[in-house]
Amino acid sequence: MAAEIFNPRSDSSTGPEGDVEPSSSSGSAESVDSLSFDPAFALHRGGKMAVQATVPVRDKDDLSLAYTPGVAKVCSAIAEQPELVHDYTWKSSVVAVVTDGTAVLGLGDIGPEASLPVMEGKAILFKQFGGVDAVPIALSCTDVDEIVETVVRFAPSFGGVNLEDISAPRCFEIERRLQERLDIPVFHDDQHGTAVVTLAALRNAARLTGRTLGDLRAVISGAGAAGVAIAKFLLEAGIGDVAVADRKGVVSTDRDDLTPVKRELAELTNKAGLSGSLEAALAGADVFIGVSGGTVPEPAVASMAEGAFVFAMANPNPEVHPDVAHKYAAVVATGRSDYPNQINNVLAFPGIFAGALQVRASRITEGMKIAAADALAAVVGDDLAADYVIPSPFDERVAPAVTAAVAAAARAEGVARR
Amino acid sequence: MAAEIFNPRSDSSTGPEGDVEPSSSSGSAESVDSLSFDPAFALHRGGKMAVQATVPVRDKDDLSLAYTPGVAKVCSAIAEQPELVHDYTWKSSVVAVVTDGTAVLGLGDIGPEASLPVMEGKAILFKQFGGVDAVPIALSCTDVDEIVETVVRFAPSFGGVNLEDISAPRCFEIERRLQERLDIPVFHDDQHGTAVVTLAALRNAARLTGRTLGDLRAVISGAGAAGVAIAKFLLEAGIGDVAVADRKGVVSTDRDDLTPVKRELAELTNKAGLSGSLEAALAGADVFIGVSGGTVPEPAVASMAEGAFVFAMANPNPEVHPDVAHKYAAVVATGRSDYPNQINNVLAFPGIFAGALQVRASRITEGMKIAAADALAAVVGDDLAADYVIPSPFDERVAPAVTAAVAAAARAEGVARR
Repeated sequence: MAAEIFNPRSDSSTGPEGDVEPSSSSGSAESVDSLSFDPAFALHRGGKMAVQATVPVRDKDDLSLAYTPGVAKVCSAIAEQPELVHDYTWKSSVVAVVTDGTAVLGLGDIGPEASLPVMEGKAILFKQFGGVDAVPIALSCTDVDEIVETVVRFAPSFGGVNLEDISAPRCFEIERRLQERLDIPVFHDDQHGTAVVTLAALRNAARLTGRTLGDLRAVISGAGAAGVAIAKFLLEAGIGDVAVADRKGVVSTDRDDLTPVKRELAELTNKAGLSGSLEAALAGADVFIGVSGGTVPEPAVASMAEGAFVFAMANPNPEVHPDVAHKYAAVVATGRSDYPNQINNVLAFPGIFAGALQVRASRITEGMKIAAADALAAVVGDDLAADYVIPSPFDERVAPAVTAAVAAAARAEGVARR
Repeated sequence: MAAEIFNPRSDSSTGPEGDVEPSSSSGSAESVDSLSFDPAFALHRGGKMAVQATVPVRDKDDLSLAYTPGVAKVCSAIAEQPELVHDYTWKSSVVAVVTDGTAVLGLGDIGPEASLPVMEGKAILFKQFGGVDAVPIALSCTDVDEIVETVVRFAPSFGGVNLEDISAPRCFEIERRLQERLDIPVFHDDQHGTAVVTLAALRNAARLTGRTLGDLRAVISGAGAAGVAIAKFLLEAGIGDVAVADRKGVVSTDRDDLTPVKRELAELTNKAGLSGSLEAALAGADVFIGVSGGTVPEPAVASMAEGAFVFAMANPNPEVHPDVAHKYAAVVATGRSDYPNQINNVLAFPGIFAGALQVRASRITEGMKIAAADALAAVVGDDLAADYVIPSPFDERVAPAVTAAVAAAARAEGVARR
């Protein structure tokens, strides 16, 4: 994958959903016909989704109810009672999957059209795993103000907004401003989806080894969207200490080269007052969380505390190869589907939005995200083991458990509208 | 319906798809439960559409093709060859149905949320009749610049833009500017869909009575989106003369109260140099086309030429009641489904977009619209009769005929990209 040093944006999408080497675009210069022999291209031919009517339009009578004149009654009712839009349109079941194509997987800034296959993929995962309708909206603008205004203007049509593959640090301001402007959930999955699944895995790893989050010192490699969100979320959840390293080393208050986002991070994190390299910070650390790509040398892994956890989530090449990690760590997780303990956002975002939409939540709170992580961790139950701290994306218990927990948390926190 | 005199905006959506009296919103203040006993509300419960995946996501292998890592190859290919977006995403099969909710049916400016039931209805008609995927996008802005910028920014996600229920005269500038800015079809159905179906009915009425379009003088009641578009389109198709009346009378160059759009209309139309009232203009006229609501007094209908055509398209109350029209006219058409010769946009827009998308047309030309009207008229064939000048919306021959004609015309006019 594109390591942070080559592409600072890449780590805003590195990790759970997997990054892929730009070189994997080999063949993209071939003709459409030859591309079609590749199973991925053959599958994508014509796109991966469609719209369907859920009411009949077979005859005059159907038409007079679903369209004019019958529909006018419904429009008038919503005009008089705006909240009825949730009952009599698909608004409350449809999420806009919004990107500007600036941080797509590990490919970086490839533009809106080229990002559409990922957005369609995201949309069908919403449907398959959460029963949520989702529509890809790839924008031709990258200016923060323009993106915010554009999403605000089309927001009446949607029940929620999933921000996707928007490069850091713009993604932080875009999400914050949209959350301020809109009364529907706005959720940047590259940040929070990753953080929720990571916390779930960490909770179970701690339970397995008889520790609590408060006992743990974590080091995160990558200060993009995922790294920043994971650090803040683990603090929210009560981790003992967390330090974040970018390609220049540990983000600490003694550095004078920090962006505003990283300066805030330096204030919030690194109680231990570490500075210097990622490798140095790992000495005696309990947890490594990799969301940056790049690689961690084996001696640094060996220097971690007894019974450490190594979550090396870069795809396709984990920061620490699982075979190496297992020599020193009690629990190893990756972003790959071919190793145990895959940390995959699809475990979180479908249920999080399904739960929020179910109760018409006005936003997604920290409490709702923690409830999602706890519900996800709980699915593992008594089967907990070093190679099973997180359920499979195809475990059918996951989405219902996350959905119910998020809906309940929304009610408890007073952001539910029903 | 809301007559022009009460709501100047209403005539931008009056006619084929039917307007409904604002009073039909009775019951909209009731509770959701009581509303659910109304068949229209019961049908609309939860909305009328959904998204579906068209590829499997059952297991790891499916996921690795439809999403990461397989999807990255497809993204990279599109980044290198932008035109591949049409082959490997749903872009070329999906249309945005865009409104600002300012001219919804006969209800006027009811806002974006309240317009959604109509936009969903439109979307399912696109699917049902044209096999075209469509997504409702209701905007919270009404400023022309803001609407244009917003649509341009999300356009990368769509293969076409259907503008809907946007009030005149803003709808004209919005469509023109979007057509200049975008390389995908942008089509305001309230204008052109209505005009296409009207021309088809007029061609068959002329054929039935042994006349040509050049023999005919038409009078249009209503100078909103539909009236303006029909007048220009009939001239394009070679009608002898056409005059347009708004609520102040015939739009003519001697009037000093004309908007820029109506001034242009005055220059283009009314060769006969008529002025004064609609009623006066009807004396000796061959064709009446009503897209304004309001009513035409019987003596004015009686004053029309021998064998006249009366197309009274206001819903639910035609400008001339069919029973009255039949006393004087050779051919009578309305916008209602319970009388013969229903002039309904659904006869045109699904096939027009299906044909344009099929060949990836960069725009929808006058020639493509005329081809659509001719194909629609031809469906009637030898069954032509006074009560059958236009096919039924449920005639399964319609969409394929219009689709094929539009695709062929796009190729002939050099706007097709395949």
